[in-house]
Amino acid sequence: MPHNVAQKLILAHLVDGTMRTGSPIAIRVDQTLTQDATGTLVMLALEAMQLDRVRTELSAQYVDHNILQIDNLNAEDHAFLESACRRFGVWYSRPGNGISHVIHMQRFGRPGTSLLGSDSHTPAAGSLGMLAIGAGGLDVALAMSGEPFHLAMPKVFGVHLTGKLPDWVSAKDVILEMLRRHGVAGGVGRIIEYSGPGLNSLSAMDRHVIANMGAELGATTSVFPSDDETRRFMEFEGRASDWRELKADPGCHYEEDDSIDLSRLEPLIAKPSSPGNVVKVSDIEGLEIHQSYIGSSANPGWRDFAIAAEIVRGRALPSHVSFDVNPTSRDLLDILIADGHLQALVSSGARIHQAGCNGCIGMGQAPAMGRNSLRTTPRNFPGRSGSREDSVFLCSPETAAASALAGRITDPRSVTIPYPKLAPKARGTITSPLLEPPPSIEPGRRVELIKSPNIHSLPQFDALPEEVALPVLLKMGDDISTDEILPAGARVLPYRSNIQKIDDFSFERIDPSYLERARAVRRTTGHAVVAGDNYGQGSSREHAALAPRNLGLRLVLARGFARIHRQNLINYGVLPLVFSQPSDYERLQQGDVLKTSALRRSLRKDDNIVFHCRSRIAARHDLTPRELEVILAGGLINWRKTSIAAA
Amino acid sequence: MPHNVAQKLILAHLVDGTMRTGSPIAIRVDQTLTQDATGTLVMLALEAMQLDRVRTELSAQYVDHNILQIDNLNAEDHAFLESACRRFGVWYSRPGNGISHVIHMQRFGRPGTSLLGSDSHTPAAGSLGMLAIGAGGLDVALAMSGEPFHLAMPKVFGVHLTGKLPDWVSAKDVILEMLRRHGVAGGVGRIIEYSGPGLNSLSAMDRHVIANMGAELGATTSVFPSDDETRRFMEFEGRASDWRELKADPGCHYEEDDSIDLSRLEPLIAKPSSPGNVVKVSDIEGLEIHQSYIGSSANPGWRDFAIAAEIVRGRALPSHVSFDVNPTSRDLLDILIADGHLQALVSSGARIHQAGCNGCIGMGQAPAMGRNSLRTTPRNFPGRSGSREDSVFLCSPETAAASALAGRITDPRSVTIPYPKLAPKARGTITSPLLEPPPSIEPGRRVELIKSPNIHSLPQFDALPEEVALPVLLKMGDDISTDEILPAGARVLPYRSNIQKIDDFSFERIDPSYLERARAVRRTTGHAVVAGDNYGQGSSREHAALAPRNLGLRLVLARGFARIHRQNLINYGVLPLVFSQPSDYERLQQGDVLKTSALRRSLRKDDNIVFHCRSRIAARHDLTPRELEVILAGGLINWRKTSIAAA
Repeated sequence: MPHNVAQKLILAHLVDGTMRTGSPIAIRVDQTLTQDATGTLVMLALEAMQLDRVRTELSAQYVDHNILQIDNLNAEDHAFLESACRRFGVWYSRPGNGISHVIHMQRFGRPGTSLLGSDSHTPAAGSLGMLAIGAGGLDVALAMSGEPFHLAMPKVFGVHLTGKLPDWVSAKDVILEMLRRHGVAGGVGRIIEYSGPGLNSLSAMDRHVIANMGAELGATTSVFPSDDETRRFMEFEGRASDWRELKADPGCHYEEDDSIDLSRLEPLIAKPSSPGNVVKVSDIEGLEIHQSYIGSSANPGWRDFAIAAEIVRGRALPSHVSFDVNPTSRDLLDILIADGHLQALVSSGARIHQAGCNGCIGMGQAPAMGRNSLRTTPRNFPGRSGSREDSVFLCSPETAAASALAGRITDPRSVTIPYPKLAPKARGTITSPLLEPPPSIEPGRRVELIKSPNIHSLPQFDALPEEVALPVLLKMGDDISTDEILPAGARVLPYRSNIQKIDDFSFERIDPSYLERARAVRRTTGHAVVAGDNYGQGSSREHAALAPRNLGLRLVLARGFARIHRQNLINYGVLPLVFSQPSDYERLQQGDVLKTSALRRSLRKDDNIVFHCRSRIAARHDLTPRELEVILAGGLINWRKTSIAAA
Repeated sequence: MPHNVAQKLILAHLVDGTMRTGSPIAIRVDQTLTQDATGTLVMLALEAMQLDRVRTELSAQYVDHNILQIDNLNAEDHAFLESACRRFGVWYSRPGNGISHVIHMQRFGRPGTSLLGSDSHTPAAGSLGMLAIGAGGLDVALAMSGEPFHLAMPKVFGVHLTGKLPDWVSAKDVILEMLRRHGVAGGVGRIIEYSGPGLNSLSAMDRHVIANMGAELGATTSVFPSDDETRRFMEFEGRASDWRELKADPGCHYEEDDSIDLSRLEPLIAKPSSPGNVVKVSDIEGLEIHQSYIGSSANPGWRDFAIAAEIVRGRALPSHVSFDVNPTSRDLLDILIADGHLQALVSSGARIHQAGCNGCIGMGQAPAMGRNSLRTTPRNFPGRSGSREDSVFLCSPETAAASALAGRITDPRSVTIPYPKLAPKARGTITSPLLEPPPSIEPGRRVELIKSPNIHSLPQFDALPEEVALPVLLKMGDDISTDEILPAGARVLPYRSNIQKIDDFSFERIDPSYLERARAVRRTTGHAVVAGDNYGQGSSREHAALAPRNLGLRLVLARGFARIHRQNLINYGVLPLVFSQPSDYERLQQGDVLKTSALRRSLRKDDNIVFHCRSRIAARHDLTPRELEVILAGGLINWRKTSIAAA
């Protein structure tokens, strides 16, 4: 049976399940990618699992998010991550080396392999014919320990490309066209696979642009074939031997499809405040702008900066525009210096920022409220720029540079110079002074983790007991969000690696007395909470499960759970049960004690559990066999620690 | 009578007083410099004075402090400052253009002129034979309105330089030697004047290094003669016609003197946490470092970056060191790209940050707690880096680069390469795309100030009334600090340009009920506060006078005042009086009402004022005639507004 590229990648990595849309499957993870904002918790999880060395082919940790360092915390995270990389055998990309997705593609990308990353733009590596998926930190930690990744088999959505992009139109306009047609949920549950003769004119880095922003379609990932252009890219990066061909079989099937004639595309732009809010640039020409911003993983390539440099070369910017240039990486900066493009940008008045994610994730370059900002970044959700009431537009480097010069939103086709023809220089020897390889020998536990006073090991949790008598410390209504369980914000986030401290904020918005009451029974009985429907909706924040668990939460008995929080509860060893009799919710009161002497046995036997309280309370679970094992072990880390020790 | 350079500069600008040490003098201000952190209040003061256009020869506003833009506030300050520059006829140096002191010296510095700046490192321009003094924002606003600057005539402290700096020793080591000898108070009340044959080997930018960090000696300013090297510098910057010679007369006198044989200097370093804590680098060689940092107004010159680039050229940094390069200006970045030095830095693994003050003032690049950071910046006071419990050392670029490579504090003389010989290229046409000239015609009031919701005009205050009945709303003890009157910190500082909002924090640490009580009588009687000795000690923060004044404070009756806060009270129209009978302090109670029907008449008549309360309370003032006029007008802004309107 002929297979498309996505199916070939899945099949090559399938360790459990069958490749039928919607079916649970498990896939082998060859490589992992973590960045610093999510990486500290990942490394603490590896420590808690007592892992000696990662079991992937390759794992890389990047520092690209928290690099402004306005206080000691970020530098302390960097020191911790650097030591953890030596401890666990992980590549360490130092602050200043640049954005994870691009460096990973250039230095480690390998067609035909799989990549799991704790960053939503991980799918960018699909540009090289990789199966690259974003996931939560604990999922990635588990993959680093050698476990497969579990997901439901996505649909494969084929997009057939024909024609060739006109002058002044580039890869960003292709993905903006996809967003215009399909919206921000158009990719949910899907792998988007690009094919067709249109690929011939899209460079590997152009494909990165498209695969990266596939995340904005909600796609599981995007994939491209590995073809002659992929080989050229690998040769350019000095890694020709890592290339292999990966193409769809003739006659392969796509469950959904679409096609784009590249030659008919025009410059497009996403208006505030959604990447799906796409119109033609020409439709909104003339709007005054105060910022134009080049960079981020959505337009990271040499050509994206070079074309902007050629557009502004020899011209000066109007006084009301800040032209912010955010180099992708140290490596790219090196090239832009050597070939004169950086000089052209600086001479025009561009502000050159340090290499990294920066303003794309609200770390610097925030605009004034209500003043229009044009960006080549992937997202313009409200406030993501760092400013309340921001007004951010997403566009190509061509549109950003032409608009910067004009001080107004400008269709780049109206610029009076000919479309610049760019010819990249051959690369010399590639050096990566800020990319540290893992120790070549097993470092094991001899490397000490460098922990500042604000970085604490994860607490050790015990297995689920057979006999429990859990006082109900809270009774809550419907739709309790993770923000109510554990808030985010500047008061809380500095303690992201300090669980003992972050505990203090658990349920504080619901009942400030909870903390003291939970601590009182933490070491004796532990406790339960009762909730209505849709418990744990909202942000996927893992700390909303971890912090209450650390305060002794063993059981959430609810009318229903939000999907991600339910998973997080299981991962941290908190049993999520639903009422068998909805009326029992009404009868249970705060202060009641839920008792059973055969919890483990009941769970193993079937899906019913009966608690004795003032009366009988019947509950049931919907745990998969694997989830049940995780719960019995006391959480994912325990579960994995046991199997590592047994091996 | 032969004069030294300092005396010549004072004499040329003296508009009041006599040039006798300690005597009050007033000097004409030719130029002003403001930066963004202090500049918003300066511009609001100009607005309140209803000034049409600045009356200096030249005023320049720089944006170099708050350029990280992690939320909307900084970009909104920039927009306000840009509009204010057009409104009042001020040069505007846009964000990204770089550090005020260096750009001012290069583009506007003129031997023989005077400069007042709202930044403590303003004296850097003394390198060109200017009289350059740092002052508070309102002082600078007044100078911009055409008023002279008042100070007590400083001592002139002559430093005779002989010999020539050895290889690996540079200008930073000269000022560190001054700090080693004289400490951080060694320059208080003094102008430090450098002379002697040693000057021949110090470039104008070397002299900038020395004059800049004269601020760390506590000096009023530092001055250098304007000589052939000054002429060479002015020619290099394309401004030969602005040069004039300015030299000390033979036989001139210095009230204090010292001499330094440059040829005997060694590499020096200031240990944590004071610039005065200077030792030889060789004394502490071998200490591990985690950061090395090149940049700031203390080592801003081309040679400071070029020498560091040559030291690290072709080598890679150890993995535990972050080598942070903070380009002085867009202009310097342009040159470092063109001559290959930026490439050498980037190739070694340096992190290139945007042009500006950055980490020098705690805006980024903060180190981890307790981990040693080497910096070419001027200050290492505890926490200034942005990190609590920091460990910052100050040194030359040579020491910083050699130590970066070694990963340990290293005497640069131990580096195995020959001392790099640097030859600056001739400059081509100088462009300044980020430096906006003021409108050439009178812009007057037609230019609208761009004020975000967080930028408010200063409130209008009334003149001092003749008849008052002021309830005493607070009775305080001795040594009340400005932090207790109006705190700083992240909760308060965002409202630096929003007086109506910052009011809310007045006296909150002393009595949270004050705010409500003050508001109750604000529009009727206003109020007074009573204090013990040394009222208003600590930070010079002007808001500690402005905010209570806006809440109706008219009178502070105290046993004694801290000098700067007393001045700020006067500037904002709050009458500072002391008890004639110390025992009256004991008798007065919160809630008492201080009455007089002849306040203005009493103040004008002599220095005694009698209030009727439950009994007679006698007070006196020590206002100079000018200060009395300011108080009667209701503050400095009213006083100046009246004279501007009259003119």
